[in-house]
Amino acid sequence: MITITLPDGSKKQYPKGITGLEIAKDISPRLAKEALAIGVNGQVWDLTRPIENDAQIKIYTWDDPEGKHTFWHTSAHLMAAALEKLYPGIKFGIGPAIENGFYYDVELPEGTTISEKDFDTIEQTMLEIARQKHPLKRYYIEKQKALEYYKQKGDPYKVELINDLQDGEITFYELGEFTDLCRGPHLPHTGYIKAVKLLNIAAAYWRGDASRQQLTRIYGISFPKQKMLTEYLQMLEEAKKRDHRKIGRELELFYFSSRVGQGLPMWLPRGTVLRNNLIDFLSQLQRKYGYQQVVTPHIGNKNLYVTSGHYAKYKQHSFQPFTTPEGDEEYMLKPMNCPHHVEIYKMKPRSYKDLPLRLAEFGTVYRYEQSGELHGLTRVRGFTQDDAHIFCTPDQLKDEFKKVIEIVLYVFEVFGFKDYTAQVSLRDPDNKEKYIGKDENWEKAEKAIIEAANEMGLKTTVELGEAAFYGPKLDFMVRDALGRKWQLGTIQVDYNLPERFELEYIGADDKPHRPVMIHRAPFGSLERFVAILIEHTAGKFPVWLTPEQVAILPISDKFINYAEQIYEKLDNARIRAFIDYRNEKIGRKIRDAEVKHIPYMLIVGEKEAQNNTVSVRRQGQGDKGSMSIEQFILLINDEMNKEKIPERLEELRQIRLQSQNS
Amino acid sequence: MITITLPDGSKKQYPKGITGLEIAKDISPRLAKEALAIGVNGQVWDLTRPIENDAQIKIYTWDDPEGKHTFWHTSAHLMAAALEKLYPGIKFGIGPAIENGFYYDVELPEGTTISEKDFDTIEQTMLEIARQKHPLKRYYIEKQKALEYYKQKGDPYKVELINDLQDGEITFYELGEFTDLCRGPHLPHTGYIKAVKLLNIAAAYWRGDASRQQLTRIYGISFPKQKMLTEYLQMLEEAKKRDHRKIGRELELFYFSSRVGQGLPMWLPRGTVLRNNLIDFLSQLQRKYGYQQVVTPHIGNKNLYVTSGHYAKYKQHSFQPFTTPEGDEEYMLKPMNCPHHVEIYKMKPRSYKDLPLRLAEFGTVYRYEQSGELHGLTRVRGFTQDDAHIFCTPDQLKDEFKKVIEIVLYVFEVFGFKDYTAQVSLRDPDNKEKYIGKDENWEKAEKAIIEAANEMGLKTTVELGEAAFYGPKLDFMVRDALGRKWQLGTIQVDYNLPERFELEYIGADDKPHRPVMIHRAPFGSLERFVAILIEHTAGKFPVWLTPEQVAILPISDKFINYAEQIYEKLDNARIRAFIDYRNEKIGRKIRDAEVKHIPYMLIVGEKEAQNNTVSVRRQGQGDKGSMSIEQFILLINDEMNKEKIPERLEELRQIRLQSQNS
Repeated sequence: MITITLPDGSKKQYPKGITGLEIAKDISPRLAKEALAIGVNGQVWDLTRPIENDAQIKIYTWDDPEGKHTFWHTSAHLMAAALEKLYPGIKFGIGPAIENGFYYDVELPEGTTISEKDFDTIEQTMLEIARQKHPLKRYYIEKQKALEYYKQKGDPYKVELINDLQDGEITFYELGEFTDLCRGPHLPHTGYIKAVKLLNIAAAYWRGDASRQQLTRIYGISFPKQKMLTEYLQMLEEAKKRDHRKIGRELELFYFSSRVGQGLPMWLPRGTVLRNNLIDFLSQLQRKYGYQQVVTPHIGNKNLYVTSGHYAKYKQHSFQPFTTPEGDEEYMLKPMNCPHHVEIYKMKPRSYKDLPLRLAEFGTVYRYEQSGELHGLTRVRGFTQDDAHIFCTPDQLKDEFKKVIEIVLYVFEVFGFKDYTAQVSLRDPDNKEKYIGKDENWEKAEKAIIEAANEMGLKTTVELGEAAFYGPKLDFMVRDALGRKWQLGTIQVDYNLPERFELEYIGADDKPHRPVMIHRAPFGSLERFVAILIEHTAGKFPVWLTPEQVAILPISDKFINYAEQIYEKLDNARIRAFIDYRNEKIGRKIRDAEVKHIPYMLIVGEKEAQNNTVSVRRQGQGDKGSMSIEQFILLINDEMNKEKIPERLEELRQIRLQSQNS
Repeated sequence: MITITLPDGSKKQYPKGITGLEIAKDISPRLAKEALAIGVNGQVWDLTRPIENDAQIKIYTWDDPEGKHTFWHTSAHLMAAALEKLYPGIKFGIGPAIENGFYYDVELPEGTTISEKDFDTIEQTMLEIARQKHPLKRYYIEKQKALEYYKQKGDPYKVELINDLQDGEITFYELGEFTDLCRGPHLPHTGYIKAVKLLNIAAAYWRGDASRQQLTRIYGISFPKQKMLTEYLQMLEEAKKRDHRKIGRELELFYFSSRVGQGLPMWLPRGTVLRNNLIDFLSQLQRKYGYQQVVTPHIGNKNLYVTSGHYAKYKQHSFQPFTTPEGDEEYMLKPMNCPHHVEIYKMKPRSYKDLPLRLAEFGTVYRYEQSGELHGLTRVRGFTQDDAHIFCTPDQLKDEFKKVIEIVLYVFEVFGFKDYTAQVSLRDPDNKEKYIGKDENWEKAEKAIIEAANEMGLKTTVELGEAAFYGPKLDFMVRDALGRKWQLGTIQVDYNLPERFELEYIGADDKPHRPVMIHRAPFGSLERFVAILIEHTAGKFPVWLTPEQVAILPISDKFINYAEQIYEKLDNARIRAFIDYRNEKIGRKIRDAEVKHIPYMLIVGEKEAQNNTVSVRRQGQGDKGSMSIEQFILLINDEMNKEKIPERLEELRQIRLQSQNS
């Protein structure tokens, strides 16, 4: 008998050689039905693989990344089996599971090609094989024999892969007539796969090396239920419509010029209004919390980054340093704002009475990304962080954490991210020597984060060993309107920079102490946040945020004068309006404004000019009746105030203050 | 007889060999008294030098830079004469006039030194010689004889200077016993110099070359009247107090860290508020004039600057280009924003209906300056321009110019620069081939600028040949509170970039045309403008602009709670306040707030808390009585509105609109 420890810590005795599937059945029939793989002492195994020794286990289902990964890995083999059936002589490279689905790199037999037209046939063949419930058999072969097998089969890619492996036995999986070099894990049989969709076909160099053979990469996804596939495809369709690159182009928010440089966004007038509104919003919020804004240069002497450690860490992957004309000084684009803020901290002696010192900056940083990695506003080479660094005493950490959580939750609320989770990342308690900073401070900080999160009513998971070497952190993960997950609003404790820059404050005891730093950025960066926001809202921004709030639509040229009076009044009230001067029918003007997501349309004609009113239309809602322009200004201001929900801010503040007193 | 043409174009006949002094006497005795030098066909001559041929002349007085320059140049010789008397064997390098005064580089005889303690003796000796009214005699010597003279005298510096001159006759000036190699011009005699002050002593390498002999540089200044010296020294004293570096440090507005890099300002919290207020002020103003803001990256591909021509022009004097890690792309810090804005113009086809397109950006640019040239915020390596580029048709130039003039004048008015002049810089009509752009467009542009300036009521001087090769311009020169001149608000026409980037718009004729660009920056840069503003206001900024507007001063700890209620109300009204929590006497709190130039102090004690009022004190003005906080908010808002003088804006607008209709 062996002892199996379950995730909740309970222990069970089972005969040696028991499998994950059998354990799952023993726990509950429902779990057995949903099980896809098993974690054994931290490794992911086949459900059918015998367990020979005592072990800690966890059954993985579709809800776990490990479960999905196993499912898609088997699906890649399934696709390979189908391809081998349809294209005899096909050669295989690698076929992994990826974040959403799987792919396989193949070399097609001479004279054959695959295009999207063939997807349907391949999918049908895959489902046919799947329905036969072929088990995925794991077995071992001596390296030499494995080489012979593939040499005989004429598959140079697998031969190369095996040659790179260590001597000894090599793992293979068999799926019907298809055998593959593979470490696993896999599903018990192909019958789990009920829905399959091939998504894309692309060229890929063998081992990513442009000097080697070009293979064909076929992407697919699969699900345990047909309905899930249907939903996924709908989501993909919607995501395509909401692609921030597409909407950004249509609404003229931002633009990339290859002559300026790849991955360097230029914010167009409308995008700049959006961006400035975000900056203004967060600035005001942060001012309430005692943040002080600073502005620092976009470059720094290389030595600054040598001191901070960023140079050693990033030099290979950064825009390279540059010199003065005489070559006597070396500078770098700043990859982060921290060293500059640290220098401001150091500009004069600091006392405990000065702390917490909260320095905020909308700081533009530059980090090199390979051109293949660039993607719209989410992966760029230059971006503006809504950065801040809080310098505080270890005792102030918890309270500061709560205030930052309050800001982050308020931001989520205002932008409509209702669905979020939080993760606390702590030290690996068994490897404390990997981390910088005093033991006592780590304990204090970890406790402070956990308590702060709990007291602010956050649902958190705690992950051991996920902390950075320089401090524990709290991460938020939000789901957007399409259910996709985005990481937003990391709060990171840092013992490293205060150490490296020898920061000090004079304590109440008149002795020097080292402060702690907190890094935090609720938006992350303006670029990434705007990208997420565009995809979350499909470009329909809240009224307070949207670049153009009001379209003034004169029914004919006769009313342009009146329209301009209306414009002037809105402009004086700092409401962003424009006049549609075009000589078009009013219906057309309304339609165009609707398409451009202008929240309000003010129609002005004979009646309105006579009565000194405007006819108000709300985008997506239709007619709101006639009113004076003053009434309209009250209406729109009221809506904007509600959108920024100051009540929720008050609520969050109360939670924090109450927990403080408890 | 020769014909002498005066600046007003009138002509007079004089005998050959007449001197400037004689002509001045002939024109008016007063002019003769004030004359310091004469311009002869564009060259500056001694007043005593005979004129042998027909010439255009202009008599220079103290009011002309040429007059001052001559005065100070002679003063340098005077100082040299005094030094030679006091330090026999002293050797002389060069001794020019500079912007304010003059200096001489000398090598002292072995065993002697000069310090500030010796200034008085030197000054007295100078005045003694001056009173003797030594004439400055100009004469010529053969190069070989000149060399012999200085070799014999044992002055290696002059020998080196003469060796570098072309063969032939060399000009010398004699002043009593002191003879100097010199091109002139000089005053008729030393008696003109009535007041002298030595200002500073410094080390200077011979010919600025650090590998050569180190000389002693003695700086001085001189005046035709003792009163002028007294005033100048008072001004220097006041300027020292107002030095923006000193006030910037005292008010904690900005900070330079040598670890971040020389000449790279970091804006501290108070400075950032100031900076953001300036940005907000100009943004709102520009929005009224139809500008659209954009945000572009701080770097650009090197090729962009090759296309723009900036690379060829500035590469030797710039931060050097830098590469991606793979070295396959070269980038540069942007030295100006224009190419980025041009790329935005080019992002889509433009029609004449889209013009004028006014793209504005508070764009931070980086330009290398040698470390010796750096000076506070006025000479830096990174600065933020309040930049904008107007793309328009040639026909729109005049109207756009007027609007820009309107903005510039409005800015001068708001910041209290009452005393300004404007200069129109046109082509050299005799060298038209030096300039880019069609003849017809130049004529149109020059006419447009002159008319725009006149119609806006500007007093302008017109300078031929002062235009940039790419277009004519209008410069403003303001005088600050100390009478010092600053150039602010250049408006520059540009035919070059549209040409280089092949910009086009489709005209009403359906054919492609080339637009014109206007560059303009009313502040110049935020850094330089803040420096000027600090020195102009001595750090007493207008209420709307100043970082901290209100100090709330509780009389004792008992009233902190009430003080915080007051703070909350001010904060909600977006008025920038702080509470002086210190346990100090109220008199001390008031004094400290006064010193820090906080415009308003609100004193809160027993009576105020009971009556729900505040006792208001205006900085520099004293008690303003008690009022409710709501009344105070009205009061301060009213003052801020007046400071921003919207009436003046309206006035300027009327001038422009009326001139448009005329």
